[in-house]
Amino acid sequence: MTNDSLPSWNDGAAKSAILDFVARVTKEGGPDFVPPAERIAIFDNDGTLWCEQPLQVQFFFGRERLETMARKDPGLKERQPFKAYLERDMAAIHDLGKKGLLEVGAAVHAGMTEDAFEEYARNWLATTKHPKLGRLFTELTYRPQVELLDFLRAHGFKTFIVSGGGIDLIRCFSEERYGVARDQVVGSSVKTRFEMQDDRGELVKLAEIDSFDDREVKPHNIGLHIGRRPILAFGNSDGDLAMLRYCKTGPGPRLALLIHHDDAEREFAYDREFRLSPLAEALDKADEYGIVVVSMKRDWRTVFETG
Amino acid sequence: MTNDSLPSWNDGAAKSAILDFVARVTKEGGPDFVPPAERIAIFDNDGTLWCEQPLQVQFFFGRERLETMARKDPGLKERQPFKAYLERDMAAIHDLGKKGLLEVGAAVHAGMTEDAFEEYARNWLATTKHPKLGRLFTELTYRPQVELLDFLRAHGFKTFIVSGGGIDLIRCFSEERYGVARDQVVGSSVKTRFEMQDDRGELVKLAEIDSFDDREVKPHNIGLHIGRRPILAFGNSDGDLAMLRYCKTGPGPRLALLIHHDDAEREFAYDREFRLSPLAEALDKADEYGIVVVSMKRDWRTVFETG
Repeated sequence: MTNDSLPSWNDGAAKSAILDFVARVTKEGGPDFVPPAERIAIFDNDGTLWCEQPLQVQFFFGRERLETMARKDPGLKERQPFKAYLERDMAAIHDLGKKGLLEVGAAVHAGMTEDAFEEYARNWLATTKHPKLGRLFTELTYRPQVELLDFLRAHGFKTFIVSGGGIDLIRCFSEERYGVARDQVVGSSVKTRFEMQDDRGELVKLAEIDSFDDREVKPHNIGLHIGRRPILAFGNSDGDLAMLRYCKTGPGPRLALLIHHDDAEREFAYDREFRLSPLAEALDKADEYGIVVVSMKRDWRTVFETG
Repeated sequence: MTNDSLPSWNDGAAKSAILDFVARVTKEGGPDFVPPAERIAIFDNDGTLWCEQPLQVQFFFGRERLETMARKDPGLKERQPFKAYLERDMAAIHDLGKKGLLEVGAAVHAGMTEDAFEEYARNWLATTKHPKLGRLFTELTYRPQVELLDFLRAHGFKTFIVSGGGIDLIRCFSEERYGVARDQVVGSSVKTRFEMQDDRGELVKLAEIDSFDDREVKPHNIGLHIGRRPILAFGNSDGDLAMLRYCKTGPGPRLALLIHHDDAEREFAYDREFRLSPLAEALDKADEYGIVVVSMKRDWRTVFETG
């Protein structure tokens, strides 16, 4: 295994920890060997695989439909979380947290079939640009992470996304951008109803949240969808701490990693003050819990996949 | 593609339908070609991949723990669904349906960690024999289906189980017996709580059912776990009808199959009178819905994997 395996990673403690871990778990006959079926690697999405600033992509995704809904139903402007989003009241949006974002998402897409949602979302992702960075959101994936996903799969790992974001939005680009199959995406979700429409069975999205995949719910959903404790986990916020600890405290070799967004020049610099998804407890306890902190500024040679 | 691909299947309409379908969807440049990522095949488990008579394996699995619980808490004998199960009152058990079975399962395993459950269940499966057939339950998997799973994977399909049975029990043998990875098992499930126990993060099973994966819930869970409409679906009861129609009514080539248990000599003969999991509507409507009925007696050369 040479340093060329991860060309967008600078040499340093983080890259060494990854290369060393993969070498150990794949060495047949070695003391830390892990059979391929157990090589489960999980990645958060927002802020771990792509940019989550100034707000999660989900925010921009729901906005146009929310505004259309509010024109038809002006009462929405008086009800939270809709009021905050319609007024772009950033303080209130942060107060309402990621759950508010999900509630808006659930409301604005309710009644769509999964097939119609897919078409709508793919079209949106293909045409809408990040308001500050001027590129498609799917061009704001992180190159070092895409390399790492490829590298892990080349060494027999099965790679999964475990995100607080909507599962079906991520599935619209996970195969193309990350090489992660749709069934290997875990995320927040809404309830659906199966019904026949013109002799075709359809899943219709309901307004009710089925799972808000954040914090302690992430290990639950890992159990539900994957059914196996991961040996590698990568996150970037306190919302990922439970899944990092679930990974790290299992028996045998384990690697838990945390991105620190400390690169104001190439991306954004933030941690505990980003109230929608703060990095505070996980950063403070990283040493104690054996979590490797990755500095975007120091450890990544390149940031974005397309740039 | 020769007839030798599925040696435990007799020549006939069902085998031809399978071979023809697989040939069409894998023929590059052909009108029905389906890219590998979209070759999703789903199988029910109880009665489709292994024997579900005289009662689903789940019934035998929970029984010992239920009897232990009832010795400590005699009040259980007065409450349904426990009363019916403790008294082995078959009429009441059938009245309570598959959901009663799940409620018993949820109650008797509540408080166990997922890791402890796994160890317990594997030991049970390795030592407990079917009361009538005198073999381990995992020896009562169907050889023609195991061949079909292998055959589909050899042709680029990704194979999944979508079962009304408990997801974590199936995961204890799905890799070894079916070649289906743990994350490719969808089933009924309970809520869990993530907590630290002696510095180790554990998922603790709760008594509350999270998903009863039957009938219209099956398409919902396919959407949640797989995120893609299957092109091949195989079931054996009315509980599978919604997922068979979800598969079959999508665009492009589709194959939906239904096992008819009509082989009293080698297995069991039953359909609409098996109240826990009847086959009635699906059988009556199979022609209209374009579902291929597989006769166990006529279409299978061998029944059990080990025999």
